[in-house]
Amino acid sequence: MTRSTDIEPVRWQDWRLVLLDQRLLPAREEYLEIKTVEQAARAIFDLVVRGAPAIGVTAAYAVVLAARNRLESSAANWRELLEQDLDGLARARPTAVNLAWAVESMRGVIDRTDPEALVPALLEKAVQIHTEDIDANHRMGELGAAEMAPGSGVLTHCNAGALATAGYGTALGVIRSGWNAGKISQVFADETRPWLQGARLTAWELSRSAIPVTVITDSAAATVMREGRVQWVVVGADRVTANGDVINKIGTYSLAVLARAHGVRFMVVAPTSTIDPATATGDNVAIESRDPGEIWSSTGAAEVPPGVTVQNRVFDVTPAEWVDMIVTEKGVLRAPFGPAIAGLKKA
Amino acid sequence: MTRSTDIEPVRWQDWRLVLLDQRLLPAREEYLEIKTVEQAARAIFDLVVRGAPAIGVTAAYAVVLAARNRLESSAANWRELLEQDLDGLARARPTAVNLAWAVESMRGVIDRTDPEALVPALLEKAVQIHTEDIDANHRMGELGAAEMAPGSGVLTHCNAGALATAGYGTALGVIRSGWNAGKISQVFADETRPWLQGARLTAWELSRSAIPVTVITDSAAATVMREGRVQWVVVGADRVTANGDVINKIGTYSLAVLARAHGVRFMVVAPTSTIDPATATGDNVAIESRDPGEIWSSTGAAEVPPGVTVQNRVFDVTPAEWVDMIVTEKGVLRAPFGPAIAGLKKA
Repeated sequence: MTRSTDIEPVRWQDWRLVLLDQRLLPAREEYLEIKTVEQAARAIFDLVVRGAPAIGVTAAYAVVLAARNRLESSAANWRELLEQDLDGLARARPTAVNLAWAVESMRGVIDRTDPEALVPALLEKAVQIHTEDIDANHRMGELGAAEMAPGSGVLTHCNAGALATAGYGTALGVIRSGWNAGKISQVFADETRPWLQGARLTAWELSRSAIPVTVITDSAAATVMREGRVQWVVVGADRVTANGDVINKIGTYSLAVLARAHGVRFMVVAPTSTIDPATATGDNVAIESRDPGEIWSSTGAAEVPPGVTVQNRVFDVTPAEWVDMIVTEKGVLRAPFGPAIAGLKKA
Repeated sequence: MTRSTDIEPVRWQDWRLVLLDQRLLPAREEYLEIKTVEQAARAIFDLVVRGAPAIGVTAAYAVVLAARNRLESSAANWRELLEQDLDGLARARPTAVNLAWAVESMRGVIDRTDPEALVPALLEKAVQIHTEDIDANHRMGELGAAEMAPGSGVLTHCNAGALATAGYGTALGVIRSGWNAGKISQVFADETRPWLQGARLTAWELSRSAIPVTVITDSAAATVMREGRVQWVVVGADRVTANGDVINKIGTYSLAVLARAHGVRFMVVAPTSTIDPATATGDNVAIESRDPGEIWSSTGAAEVPPGVTVQNRVFDVTPAEWVDMIVTEKGVLRAPFGPAIAGLKKA
C-alpha cells in the first residue's frame, strides 16, 4: 500500500494503526497497535510517535479509526461526536502544524462525502498523505544534497529522519541523499536533550542505514564548528511561519546563531505541509512546554529543591534572518522568505 | 581550622580528608573518608570531587596523607615513593591547572623541609591553600558583582560554586555577592550535560542558599538570551592560558559566542591559581575525553549501535576574543588579556 522503506514508524495494517514505540529505542524495537482515536492522541502526546510529518500521518489514520468507530456505533449524533474526536486529536500537541493540517485535510473529506462512502474515502486520503510524505522526502533529499559540495561535514539536531516522517526523513533524507551521492564525509548528531532523539533515534536510524555518525552533547556543537568539521547544519521543522521563521526542537535556534558565527550554512528541510502561511511570525506560535520531570528525572532526585524551577520548553523559534535556505518538495526557498512562501502556496 | 561556609566539599578532620560525594547529589548528601593518596586520586578521577579549585585543595591534603604514610612506613626510598604518589595524583585529571599547581606548591614544601618537620609543614601549606581559596572567592564575588547593573539576569553553566571550590564559589561567588547586593534579579543554570552539574549541583547549592534559580537544557540558553532575560553569562574556568583563552566545561564556548550575538556580557571568574602563564594558548592544552558511556548510558541501551561514535570531550576552549572580562582575586582583567595576565603574575 505504501512505498516500502527500511524504517516505518507508522503503518496501516488490518484496520489498525501500528506505531513503532520510539520511547523504547534504541534498547528495544516494539510496535503498538492503535484501534481508537483516543489511543492515537495518547500515543502522540506520550511521544510514542513524534516528528511533525509522522504525527500528521498518524493523525490522518486516526481519523479513519474515529469515523469507523463512530459510524459503527450508529449514534444519531455521530458527526458531532466525530468532530469532538478531531478536536481532541488536534490538541494532542500544539506546536507542529502538520497535526492540524492533517486533521483539516481529513475534515475536508468528511464534509464532502456521504456517510456510506466515508470510511473508504478517508482511508484513501490518509494513504495519500502517507505516500506523498515519502515522495516529498525523497525529492527534498535530492534538492538539499544538490546544494552541498563534495566532502561536506554535516551536523543535525533531534531526529528529522524516517522515524519522524512516513519514511526516508526530511533532514536525514538530505543526509541520506548526500551520503549516497558522495557529498557528505561525516555526520554529527546532537544528542538533543531532554528526550535524546539524536542519541536514541538518529544514531539508531543512521546505523541501520550504514551511515557513520558521531553523537555529541548539544553544547559541543560550537566546538565541532570551530574545528571546521562541519560545513552545514541540516534540521527539520515543526512549523515554518509566513515570514520564514522556523519552529523546531529546542536548540535549533542556538545552532543557527553558532553556524552564522562560524561560516557554516543553515538548511531547514520541511515539506509544504509544515509551512503555515496563516501565522505571521514564530512569535505568534504556541510553544509547547512539557513536564519538568522530563528534564529533572535525569538527576536521580525525586524532588526538585525549593526555589528551583525547571523549564522544559520543547521548541524554539529561529527567526528567518538566521536561516540560509528552506528545502521543500516544491523547491529550495531563499531569503526573502516571505515572498518565496507566498509564491509557493499560490503555485 | 578553615573559615566556615555552609557547603564544604572538602574538609580536613582528624587526619582524614572528608569529601562530599558529589556523584550522589542532589538525591543524597554523603561524605567519603579518604586516608590515602590513591583514594584521593581515585576520588578526583571518579568525580566525587570536581571543579578546578576544589581539586587543587583536595590534592594539597592528599599530599599530606601521602607524606605521612610514606614517612611512617620508614622506607629508605620514601622520597622516591612520594614522588611517584605526586605524579599519580597530578595525572588524575589533565585539564584543570589547579591540580598541577597544588601538587607543585606542595612539592616546593617537600624540597625545602627536613623530613621530621615535613608533615606539619605540608599540612600548614594545605590549610593555607584551602583558606586562601575561600578568601579569593569572596574577593572575586565582590569584584564581579560590582561590574553588574541592578536588576541583571545571569546565566551560569556547570557548577563553579562552593561545591567546586573550598567554599563560596567562583562564578556562583559572584552570583551570591550580586544577589546579596541586589544586583541580580534572576539566575538561569544550564543543566550541563553529560554530568548535569548545573541541574544536580548548582540548583542544589543555590537552593541551600535561598537564591531562586531556573534550570534549562543547555540548548535553551540561546532562547533565554533572545528573550532578553539575561545580561550576563558568568562561568568559572579550569585553566586560563597566557593569552586569555579559557578552558572550561564543554558548552562554555557556545555560550560565549551566543552571548556576543545577543549583546550579553561574558564574565569568567577564576582565581590566579587557575591562570597558567606557561601555556601559550588554549589549543596547547590537553582536553580530557572521558568514557562515552557517561553520555550513552542516558539512552537506556547497553550497546552503542555499529557505526556510531560517541564523543565525550569534557572541556572546550573559549578563545580570548570572546571573553569580556576575567575576574581574579587580584583584580578584573580586560582585553588585551596577554599583557594583563603577564602583569598580574609579576605583581
